[in-house]
Amino acid sequence: MQRRSFIQKAAVGAAAGTIAGAPAIVSAQPQIRWRLASSFPKSLDAIFGAGEVVSRRVSAMTGGKFQISVHAAGEIVPGLQVLDAVQNGTVEMGHTAVYYFFGKEPTWALGTAVPFGLNARQYNAWWHQGGGDKLFNEFTTGKFGVHALLTGNTGAQMGGWFRKEINGLDDLKGLKFRIAGVAGMMLAKLGVVPQQLAAGDIYSSLEKGAIDAAEWTVPHDDEKLGFQKVAKYYYYPGFWEGGPALHSLVNTKAMASLPPEYKAILEAACEEGNAYMMSRYDALNAAALKRLIGGGVQLKRFPNAVMEASYKAAQEVYADLSAKSADFKKIHDHYFGFQRDQIAWFRVNENTFDDFMAQVRRGG
Amino acid sequence: MQRRSFIQKAAVGAAAGTIAGAPAIVSAQPQIRWRLASSFPKSLDAIFGAGEVVSRRVSAMTGGKFQISVHAAGEIVPGLQVLDAVQNGTVEMGHTAVYYFFGKEPTWALGTAVPFGLNARQYNAWWHQGGGDKLFNEFTTGKFGVHALLTGNTGAQMGGWFRKEINGLDDLKGLKFRIAGVAGMMLAKLGVVPQQLAAGDIYSSLEKGAIDAAEWTVPHDDEKLGFQKVAKYYYYPGFWEGGPALHSLVNTKAMASLPPEYKAILEAACEEGNAYMMSRYDALNAAALKRLIGGGVQLKRFPNAVMEASYKAAQEVYADLSAKSADFKKIHDHYFGFQRDQIAWFRVNENTFDDFMAQVRRGG
Repeated sequence: MQRRSFIQKAAVGAAAGTIAGAPAIVSAQPQIRWRLASSFPKSLDAIFGAGEVVSRRVSAMTGGKFQISVHAAGEIVPGLQVLDAVQNGTVEMGHTAVYYFFGKEPTWALGTAVPFGLNARQYNAWWHQGGGDKLFNEFTTGKFGVHALLTGNTGAQMGGWFRKEINGLDDLKGLKFRIAGVAGMMLAKLGVVPQQLAAGDIYSSLEKGAIDAAEWTVPHDDEKLGFQKVAKYYYYPGFWEGGPALHSLVNTKAMASLPPEYKAILEAACEEGNAYMMSRYDALNAAALKRLIGGGVQLKRFPNAVMEASYKAAQEVYADLSAKSADFKKIHDHYFGFQRDQIAWFRVNENTFDDFMAQVRRGG
Repeated sequence: MQRRSFIQKAAVGAAAGTIAGAPAIVSAQPQIRWRLASSFPKSLDAIFGAGEVVSRRVSAMTGGKFQISVHAAGEIVPGLQVLDAVQNGTVEMGHTAVYYFFGKEPTWALGTAVPFGLNARQYNAWWHQGGGDKLFNEFTTGKFGVHALLTGNTGAQMGGWFRKEINGLDDLKGLKFRIAGVAGMMLAKLGVVPQQLAAGDIYSSLEKGAIDAAEWTVPHDDEKLGFQKVAKYYYYPGFWEGGPALHSLVNTKAMASLPPEYKAILEAACEEGNAYMMSRYDALNAAALKRLIGGGVQLKRFPNAVMEASYKAAQEVYADLSAKSADFKKIHDHYFGFQRDQIAWFRVNENTFDDFMAQVRRGG
């Protein structure tokens, strides 16, 4: 190194390092720019917003040195191609519901939600303290070259919008219901005809009567899509999605290229995104549901016979998928083993408290 | 600055700043050392551990430049003096259950848990998206010079350990029950004689019959303290603690002295501590409860008459405290207004899903 060059560089370093009490602390950190492809449109503020939280917080924690630009579904790739885009390095990162990739490998379904699975809090416990993170990432990194970071949950979803009442199992026969994945396989065993439709096609299909019913997510989102105008009955609970988790997917090479501080910062920002999304849905669903009911929507609980038959059908689907995929079997058995203990605890204390509060505040 | 001194400092800065591709990115960040005083002993791994998570993650995100040493109750100050220690700058930071400071100002109780309050998930929603963070911090910074960061939750606690059965309101008359704060005021209205005892004195008091009952937290902690050896009946739910939240308290001057990146990092680490603690309790409570029952403990649900009378008594206590403290009234009204909407949503969808799962997996 020439003396002149050394002195110049040295002066920059020294200046940044010796300003007493100055908050500009990041002069020696590398500048990194990533792109995040979301599977969601900007209009869904809670779910799309989780990706924005990750971006904003990573920037705040690095003084703007590590920038992640967030792109809505379709901007770089369509929402359902986020896994491909992360895997092949088109983008460093995605934010998605990994059960969208069920068609590539059924194991992906277990990452988001499967019928009669963990609720949101139980999912967090499974992921963070039950071994779920490690087990699921063995699958995602080993088979797809992507690292999965928990980044959001919708909470238990609603059962969806129906043009006619469901009073028993007979009403499921031939029912054209927009529903996909493991849930579709389960309901097909009871005579439902699952329909796969993109979000933008659901409304017109319901309106025309081309389908009889459609499920989307929770009141805060459902209201925006206007289903209340074309289907009168709003059923609960969405027993196939008791606590759907969202994930950030990160290309494993991109992850490995990060300084360890940035990796830790990215992980922490995803946890903030996780908390944000669940809290935002919880804070907004009640008001949306109240408006929907005020507008004439009829809230209906699925009959027990439908839920119990669905539970049995789900076990058959799990047996089929476990026979086809060793990864599915391994994670399924771990996930539902963990659930057994969770329910043994929740049904004693948490559920009793929640149910009492629901009863005592019913007038409120 | 002398030329020689300048060159020496410059060389250090330049060397650290120009190693191509090296992950040592933090040369220009200030070195900061803080002390965190916990209100808890090291043996309570989930609750004490939340403070350790904050420390470990702040260090990881700053390459060890921002170090927070974590001290168990009694190491620097007793557990119940954490607020004083943070307020007067003895330590920069504490980790505590802020309802311990109910005696200074009743408003503190609302930060942790009050009878028939928010459950853990609802508390997160209130804090992060309902305005609770802002409102509560107006109180803590304005009146006490400390900033509160949400850092943990136990979930709904158990009702505690009883030497005799509680079959109705008559069994509460004269009952010497180790319980404090707003919960003690509520139960006193029903004839209970609240007893304030430090953790270390509960076991011997129960054993000698000096008290009739004692509440602590959840099975994972309760089992360690051995109450099952001296009280046969384990009651649920702890309706005065439906989702007790823990907080980090940070001296406002210490907080203001942080570079903005470190402030963001500290906030994110607290969110990680928040997720850690809830997940850890959830993952461990089931096994502890199973062992307790296997060892002969009798699990009992409080009679509805007791819970309903307690609910009425709680409203009287809230009216009294609201009359005494404008801060209490302001935050109470906001908190319970938020709860009304939460319950309206949870009782439809979340509770129905959870209750169905408890029923269908009862045999499992």
